[in-house]
Amino acid sequence: MVTKQFKGSPEDADLTRADSLAREIFSDVANKWAFLIIEFLGERTLRFTELRNEVEGISHKMLTQNLRMLERNGLVERTVHPTVPPRVDYTLTEPGQALRATVNGMCDWTSRYLVDIEASRRRFDA
Amino acid sequence: MVTKQFKGSPEDADLTRADSLAREIFSDVANKWAFLIIEFLGERTLRFTELRNEVEGISHKMLTQNLRMLERNGLVERTVHPTVPPRVDYTLTEPGQALRATVNGMCDWTSRYLVDIEASRRRFDA
Repeated sequence: MVTKQFKGSPEDADLTRADSLAREIFSDVANKWAFLIIEFLGERTLRFTELRNEVEGISHKMLTQNLRMLERNGLVERTVHPTVPPRVDYTLTEPGQALRATVNGMCDWTSRYLVDIEASRRRFDA
Repeated sequence: MVTKQFKGSPEDADLTRADSLAREIFSDVANKWAFLIIEFLGERTLRFTELRNEVEGISHKMLTQNLRMLERNGLVERTVHPTVPPRVDYTLTEPGQALRATVNGMCDWTSRYLVDIEASRRRFDA
């Protein structure tokens, strides 16, 4: 919930920080691959190769990059098991699970209103 | 909900379009002013000057820019009443109301996990 009193108040700094973080995170995760990774990991813990099979069409590089981004933000936890060869798996953390619900809300909203928004833009730009 | 089967299928184009639109919209609205405008208009229809009073600290220019962006995307409806002088007011449309719920979800998520995310980034970057 956005604080409505912020000018000059201590909440101002927090709102600005939360605002800029929200923009960063949502611009990081708002890509097809991150959406899909979050979606599959939301169902269960997966190994790199399993994820690669689930997310059809993703390249090794894209999967690595997105997993690192998610791990950096604390949304995915990477665990190395001391087996031979080492087994590495990925789990959605609690913040990641909560983000999944939010991302689903975004996706639902966008697919629901996609046509309306595009029509509105055409009208406005005309 | 993200479609999981998309490579080469007709849903691919839609998912890519929805994905790029989602990124655009959320990057447009993910700013403090747009959040606040959506929040206030979610409560009731407001005139420009009323909005300007409600959203403390917003400049005339920022309010105009954000209202145009929201109007262009069909999230806000601008009505000119044929009075003397003309009265102009702004209403959140149905897509705008639905977005308000989603944006509130994003804000809640971000403020809830702000500290965790920042800590996770510091650990990762160290």
